[in-house]
Amino acid sequence: MARDTNPALTRWQLASSKLLDHYKVTSGEEFHLSSIHPDDTRDLSKEEAQEWITQAIEMMSELQEKLYAQDHWALLLIFQAMDAAGKDGTIKKVMTGINPQGCQVFSFKTPSAEELDHDFLWRTSRDLPERGRIGIFNRSYYEEVLIARVHPEILARQHLPDALVTKQIWKERFEDIAAFERYLTRNGIAVRKFFLHVSKEEQTARLLKRLDTPSKNWKFSEGDFTEQEYWDAYLHAYEEMIRATSTPHAPWFVVPSDHKWFTHAVVAAAIIDALEELDLAFPTLNKEQTAKLRAIREKIAQRTAAS
Amino acid sequence: MARDTNPALTRWQLASSKLLDHYKVTSGEEFHLSSIHPDDTRDLSKEEAQEWITQAIEMMSELQEKLYAQDHWALLLIFQAMDAAGKDGTIKKVMTGINPQGCQVFSFKTPSAEELDHDFLWRTSRDLPERGRIGIFNRSYYEEVLIARVHPEILARQHLPDALVTKQIWKERFEDIAAFERYLTRNGIAVRKFFLHVSKEEQTARLLKRLDTPSKNWKFSEGDFTEQEYWDAYLHAYEEMIRATSTPHAPWFVVPSDHKWFTHAVVAAAIIDALEELDLAFPTLNKEQTAKLRAIREKIAQRTAAS
Repeated sequence: MARDTNPALTRWQLASSKLLDHYKVTSGEEFHLSSIHPDDTRDLSKEEAQEWITQAIEMMSELQEKLYAQDHWALLLIFQAMDAAGKDGTIKKVMTGINPQGCQVFSFKTPSAEELDHDFLWRTSRDLPERGRIGIFNRSYYEEVLIARVHPEILARQHLPDALVTKQIWKERFEDIAAFERYLTRNGIAVRKFFLHVSKEEQTARLLKRLDTPSKNWKFSEGDFTEQEYWDAYLHAYEEMIRATSTPHAPWFVVPSDHKWFTHAVVAAAIIDALEELDLAFPTLNKEQTAKLRAIREKIAQRTAAS
Repeated sequence: MARDTNPALTRWQLASSKLLDHYKVTSGEEFHLSSIHPDDTRDLSKEEAQEWITQAIEMMSELQEKLYAQDHWALLLIFQAMDAAGKDGTIKKVMTGINPQGCQVFSFKTPSAEELDHDFLWRTSRDLPERGRIGIFNRSYYEEVLIARVHPEILARQHLPDALVTKQIWKERFEDIAAFERYLTRNGIAVRKFFLHVSKEEQTARLLKRLDTPSKNWKFSEGDFTEQEYWDAYLHAYEEMIRATSTPHAPWFVVPSDHKWFTHAVVAAAIIDALEELDLAFPTLNKEQTAKLRAIREKIAQRTAAS
C-alpha cells in the first residue's frame, strides 16, 4: 500500500501509536486533565500532519467500505468540547471523503419538549448507527453530565421526580452511561469518544474571530461568551466524566485542540485505530454461491451473444 | 372511598398484598418456576375476582389521571408469555377504561430488517413511555433472551460479529437488561414485568378452541403448535430470565394463567400497587398562581356581567 512507501508517513505512523497512547484514556482512575496541554503537538510539524490526514482519509475510506460490506460492526464516534474547540471543523475535515451512505452525523442541541419528557438516553438512542455504519454524535448524552451539571436549571427542566434528584445523580448517570456503552460494545457497536481540549485563551481568540469575520458571524452566539464564566465548573465536569466513563472498550481521547491540524491528525489516527481493531474483511462467497454466480454470468453471456 | 365500604373488596384487598407477595419476584436467586402452579387461584372465587377487577379499573383510572397531571413518573408494563397464555386478553380486560391519552400499547412481533441492523434494545427504546404515561409492551426486549435463545437461527439473523456470540451471551444480555432497567428506574420510569404462566394442557385446549371457533380462527397460526415442541426449552429460558432480571425496582410477577379471571385480578392488583408506590398527587398552585387564577376568574365574570 502507498502508505508503506511514503517515508514521512511511515515515520509518523510509528509515532501515531505513541500519540494515541498518550491521549487515549482507557481507565480513568488516575487521569487528570492537567496532564494534557491544549497546545501540545508532540514533535509533529503542521506539514507532516497535513500529509498524514490526506493519507488517513484514504485509509478510512477503504476501511469504511469493508465495514459496510461486511455488515457486522458499527462505529460510534462521540465529540464533546467547549464552544469553538473545533468539533464541527474536525468532523468536516476528517470525515469529508467518506461515503455518506455509510456515515451519518447527528448534532444534539437544546432538547425538545418531547425529548425532555423521556429518559435521558432516549433522544440519542434513536440515532445509534446501524451495522456497517459509522455514526457521529456532535454532542451526545454526555451533555447530561456536563451542561446539566453546570446549570442546575437545565436539570430542573427534565422534570424528574424529586425523589430521584439526589447528590448521587452524577455518579448514577456515569454508571448508567458506562453500562450502556458496555451493552453497545457487546452488540457490535464500537465506541470512541473525543474531548477536544482547547485553552481559554485560544477559545477567546476564536470567538473574537467569529465576531470580526463577517462570514463567521453566523457561528457566534452571545451564550458562547457568557459560558466562559463557567469555565472551571465545566473543566471539573469534563474531568469527572472522563475519569468515570473511560474503559478499554469505550475510551476517551483527550485531544489537544489549540492547533486544529493537530486535532485532526489525532482524531483521524484514532478512527483508523478503531476500525483496524475490528476484524473487517469483504464477505467471501462459498463454493455454492460462487457456482451460482458463475451460472448467472453464463446465462447473461449467452443471451447477449444470441441477441 | 367506595372500596373501603365494600366488605367483599376489603377482604380481597387484605388478601391482595399477600397474593402479590406470593407472585412477585424481587430477587431471583432462589426462584424456581415449579413453585408456582399455572392453575393456582389461592382462595379467591371467580365472582370475587370479577368484582375486584371492576373496582380496580376505577382505582387505576384515578391514579393514572394523577400520574398524567403530575408529569414526573412513567410506568412501563411488560408482558411475556407462551402463545395463548392471555397477553392480549389481559391488556384488553385490565386497561380498557383507562384514558388512552395517557396509555400506549406497543406489540413487538418479528423485527424488521432495519431493526435487526441495530442493537437489540433499539426498537423497543423508541417506544418507552413519556413522563406521565403508562406504556405497555406486549412482548419486549425479553424476546432477545427467549425466542432468540430457543431458536439459534433467530440469533444468527441478528448478524452480530462472530467474536461477540459466545457462551456468555445470555448472561451478558441479562446483565445489560438489568442495567437498562436500573437506568430507567433512576429516570422516573417504574418497571413491572409479567410472565403469564400457562400450563401446556391449558394452552393446547385454547389453541384447539382457536381452530374450532370461526371468530377465533384469525388468532391461530400453525407456528403456535410447532412451538409446543420447544416447551421445556422455553420454560428453562423463562426461569433463567426471571432468576437473572428480578430486582426490587423492576420485579417480575409470575402470574398463574390457567384461569383468565385470576390472571386479570393479579395483574390489576400489581398495577395499582406500582402506581401507589409512586408519590402521585395533583399539582398544587402556590399563592401567587392562585391569586393570578382568581384575578382571571374575576375578569371573565365582569366581562360576562357587562355583556
